[in-house]
Amino acid sequence: MSAHNDDVVIGVDFGTLSGRAVVVRVADGAELASAVHEFEHGVVSQTLPGSGTPLAPDTALQVPEDYRAVLRHTVPKALAAAGVSPQRVVGIGTDFTACTVLPTTADGTPLCELPEFADRPHAYAKLWKHHAAQREADDINALAAERGEDWLARYGGKISSEWQFAKGLQVLREDPEVYRRSDRWIEAADWIVWVLCGAETRNVCTAGYKGIYQDGAWPDRDYLAALHPDFAGFAEEKLAHPLMQLGERAGGLSASAAALTGLPEGIAVAVGNVDAHVTAAAAQTVEPGRMLAVMGTSTCHVMNGESLAEVPGMCGAVRDGIAPGYWGYEAGQSGVGDIFAWFAQSHMPAEYQREADELGVSAHDLLSRKSADQPVGGHGLVALDWHSGNRSVLVDHSLSGVICGLTLATRPEEVYRALVESTAFGTRTIFDAFTGSGVPVEEVTVAGGLKRNAYVMQIYADVLNRPLHVADSDQGPAVGSAIHAAVAAGAYADIRTASAAMGGATRDAVLPDPERAAAYDRLYAVYTELHDHFGRGGSDALHRLRAVRNESLTR
Amino acid sequence: MSAHNDDVVIGVDFGTLSGRAVVVRVADGAELASAVHEFEHGVVSQTLPGSGTPLAPDTALQVPEDYRAVLRHTVPKALAAAGVSPQRVVGIGTDFTACTVLPTTADGTPLCELPEFADRPHAYAKLWKHHAAQREADDINALAAERGEDWLARYGGKISSEWQFAKGLQVLREDPEVYRRSDRWIEAADWIVWVLCGAETRNVCTAGYKGIYQDGAWPDRDYLAALHPDFAGFAEEKLAHPLMQLGERAGGLSASAAALTGLPEGIAVAVGNVDAHVTAAAAQTVEPGRMLAVMGTSTCHVMNGESLAEVPGMCGAVRDGIAPGYWGYEAGQSGVGDIFAWFAQSHMPAEYQREADELGVSAHDLLSRKSADQPVGGHGLVALDWHSGNRSVLVDHSLSGVICGLTLATRPEEVYRALVESTAFGTRTIFDAFTGSGVPVEEVTVAGGLKRNAYVMQIYADVLNRPLHVADSDQGPAVGSAIHAAVAAGAYADIRTASAAMGGATRDAVLPDPERAAAYDRLYAVYTELHDHFGRGGSDALHRLRAVRNESLTR
Repeated sequence: MSAHNDDVVIGVDFGTLSGRAVVVRVADGAELASAVHEFEHGVVSQTLPGSGTPLAPDTALQVPEDYRAVLRHTVPKALAAAGVSPQRVVGIGTDFTACTVLPTTADGTPLCELPEFADRPHAYAKLWKHHAAQREADDINALAAERGEDWLARYGGKISSEWQFAKGLQVLREDPEVYRRSDRWIEAADWIVWVLCGAETRNVCTAGYKGIYQDGAWPDRDYLAALHPDFAGFAEEKLAHPLMQLGERAGGLSASAAALTGLPEGIAVAVGNVDAHVTAAAAQTVEPGRMLAVMGTSTCHVMNGESLAEVPGMCGAVRDGIAPGYWGYEAGQSGVGDIFAWFAQSHMPAEYQREADELGVSAHDLLSRKSADQPVGGHGLVALDWHSGNRSVLVDHSLSGVICGLTLATRPEEVYRALVESTAFGTRTIFDAFTGSGVPVEEVTVAGGLKRNAYVMQIYADVLNRPLHVADSDQGPAVGSAIHAAVAAGAYADIRTASAAMGGATRDAVLPDPERAAAYDRLYAVYTELHDHFGRGGSDALHRLRAVRNESLTR
Repeated sequence: MSAHNDDVVIGVDFGTLSGRAVVVRVADGAELASAVHEFEHGVVSQTLPGSGTPLAPDTALQVPEDYRAVLRHTVPKALAAAGVSPQRVVGIGTDFTACTVLPTTADGTPLCELPEFADRPHAYAKLWKHHAAQREADDINALAAERGEDWLARYGGKISSEWQFAKGLQVLREDPEVYRRSDRWIEAADWIVWVLCGAETRNVCTAGYKGIYQDGAWPDRDYLAALHPDFAGFAEEKLAHPLMQLGERAGGLSASAAALTGLPEGIAVAVGNVDAHVTAAAAQTVEPGRMLAVMGTSTCHVMNGESLAEVPGMCGAVRDGIAPGYWGYEAGQSGVGDIFAWFAQSHMPAEYQREADELGVSAHDLLSRKSADQPVGGHGLVALDWHSGNRSVLVDHSLSGVICGLTLATRPEEVYRALVESTAFGTRTIFDAFTGSGVPVEEVTVAGGLKRNAYVMQIYADVLNRPLHVADSDQGPAVGSAIHAAVAAGAYADIRTASAAMGGATRDAVLPDPERAAAYDRLYAVYTELHDHFGRGGSDALHRLRAVRNESLTR
């Protein structure tokens, strides 16, 4: 540990709508203060700012200057709130949503900042939830399967439309000039580090999980050329760069970044990272077998393993992807909190709304209260949590939600509870897939906004029939970034050590009830039957419904 | 036709909560006036009136004096409203909910009217929706299947817990003294005729559909004794009586009934009948192949056929059961309008309620308006309409509702529309079963409250891909009863002739759109797949959910 007990580090977490900086004490991880700054342009999905250029459906862009503004506003503000002098800061770390990716010139200037490209949608950063490259993803997957590309299995059999290659191919197909002028195609996670230290770096995590970098190589030219002749050099020309390990020092804070943030020039800047992955350090889940579930609108699961296994339906297995020395596994559920929100917002009757208003509680709270004490299975319902498709273990975004067991006596709070339970069953399915593939889930820690929801947590503990540990920090990603900054600054030998000293989680915060857990086993068996029937080829009903919908809406 | 052009008949329809009398001109079926009277005691399901005796779950009783009150109030009131002298009335006909059944003494006095039985629940009339005899129905069906009783196939393979034998067996098991003292176990449809003409009669319709009378015989003593030793004589002692054809004259109006109603003593009283079946005359669907769908909270289908066929899942096939000379077929859907009501009442958000309030329309209207113009399949949903179980063609009340295809973008009006469509798919499934069994559905006429709902009717026409005829009268059962009264009075030779002269339906009132119909074929294929998977043994998921629910709620 560092000799300077008053050293601090700064972690900056770039989310979907805002960025947050936290000031953390190196010695013990104490969070001294934080500050948030909203992106001026948020998610750009209708028209481009300035030019007003209209955007295609499913487009989700961002404006890179919004990211710089986060650094400019939050770092000085958080320091001031903490009453800490900038001179005490020994390092800064960052994490980003991913795959959020942008085209830049060779010096890192975002293409959208060149006047001639300001009105070109493809010159902007594509946010993780830009979903307009599905056709490209389909082509990428079909070709990879046809050619038997080895790397495909590392991604559970499917490359997502959200990732670097699909988004890059979309640019080439739809705006070849932007594609040609893009010297670099870079994750925002790496671009922000370029802003901070003035030199391009690339991290192993996004290269592995959001790019297609496996076993020291990118997809080969032949494969890429078969997708599109002009795509042959995509990886070697626009992506390739020496990769750095997480927790490494990307460089020293540049003079211009020092001016931007008010921090001392030359302090350590940590290699870029992804929000869920960096949280593992904050939640003390770096050790193998410690599953971290970052639960919010969706859930991201990350866990280290000692060895490589091909877990069906995982998002990715990447060597050193969460921390050096391990195989980092990622899985996820596309819809969790946003399924609950969908129901609470659109299917809760006026009478309940009045009751919630009178009690001064949220719709969620009311529905939770009304159903919390019902015996397990008393509603007679089982749902499939596929309202946003299924990320793991089926990797199929054409699936959709199902509810079974409805009667004329079914109350809204019962459907709500069934939806919460369905996401817990979805988590259990993922854990079963890991354990069944020889990557045992030994314990579970929850981070993210839902960790404070006692109703949801108890259902998860009962469904999973395991104790849940809960990350202490409410700003896990930012704290995780700060921990990585401490490692980059040399205050700790590695992420494991830093995590042990600076991270925190309450062990056994939520305990399962044996009787409820046993009752859930029966419902889970029904869930699994439905899951496999609709998700593994027993029935293509959901795909047919999706096809009918898409055709009818575009007719 | 009668020579007296100013002759009128009276039809009285006994519903679940009230009775209605209509004054109809014999010559042309013109409805001159009507009057309604609510049952004082409605549906008795919590405690007995007077004694306050608490009732078991799923009990639904009625007070026979409420039925007499309908005659006393509505007949004079309807005549007065029509400005018609009682002397012009040549006959009276009635119809009733069924199976609504009661125990009486040998002279027709309801057992509950004997002071010593006033506090005994089993001495009261059991309403059709008394659902506390499921155990008895299960035993009846298991034993019949085991013994290979021929009559079972006439009821689609299952005797309902709502019918005479299950309800009678429940009385024997739970209150043997009431059972022993019941000289007669009689449908309210026949009991009200007893009140009118002072003599017991029995009609072929309820004997066949709600009793188990087939091919001239009741279930034999051996079978009944195997259910319970004291049940051996149930049919021959409490039910058996010469059966009369529908449209026959049961007798002349008695002096006491003349006093009760203000009608002339001695006028024709028609044989008792059932609400759905009697409506066939009003809707001009007596001819073979003309399916009548009486659509309300639930739907009842009745149709005549030239020959006997065993239609899987029909409620019953009864010789002369709708009109003499034909095989009368009945089928049904347990939940239709009440599924729409369940959703509109319990799952429509506050924001929509405000909008409906501002527009001054009902929840149903708002949800209909919002979804009427959506292209078929645009919601991506298919539901199974089993919220009340499935009457036809699966005859399984342990089934429950399912919705497939939900996304975070699914709006309440889309679910509402999918539910309406699901009931139309259910109807199509029934029609397919009839046609597939050699009883072709040649045309379809709709009666009942939903016939005025243009939104629902259009969806049905499109899903069924046929024109819908619509019964003219808004009080089909009462008019049907009046038509039967005209036949009983000798004004017409038979029900067919009377129906042609006095009934009415608008042909081709709703026409299918070929494009929408074609699109619905694809959704119906998905419905059928789900229907067969969950309903015909592919999956027992819904039964398992029901079992878990029942166990968890009774633990």
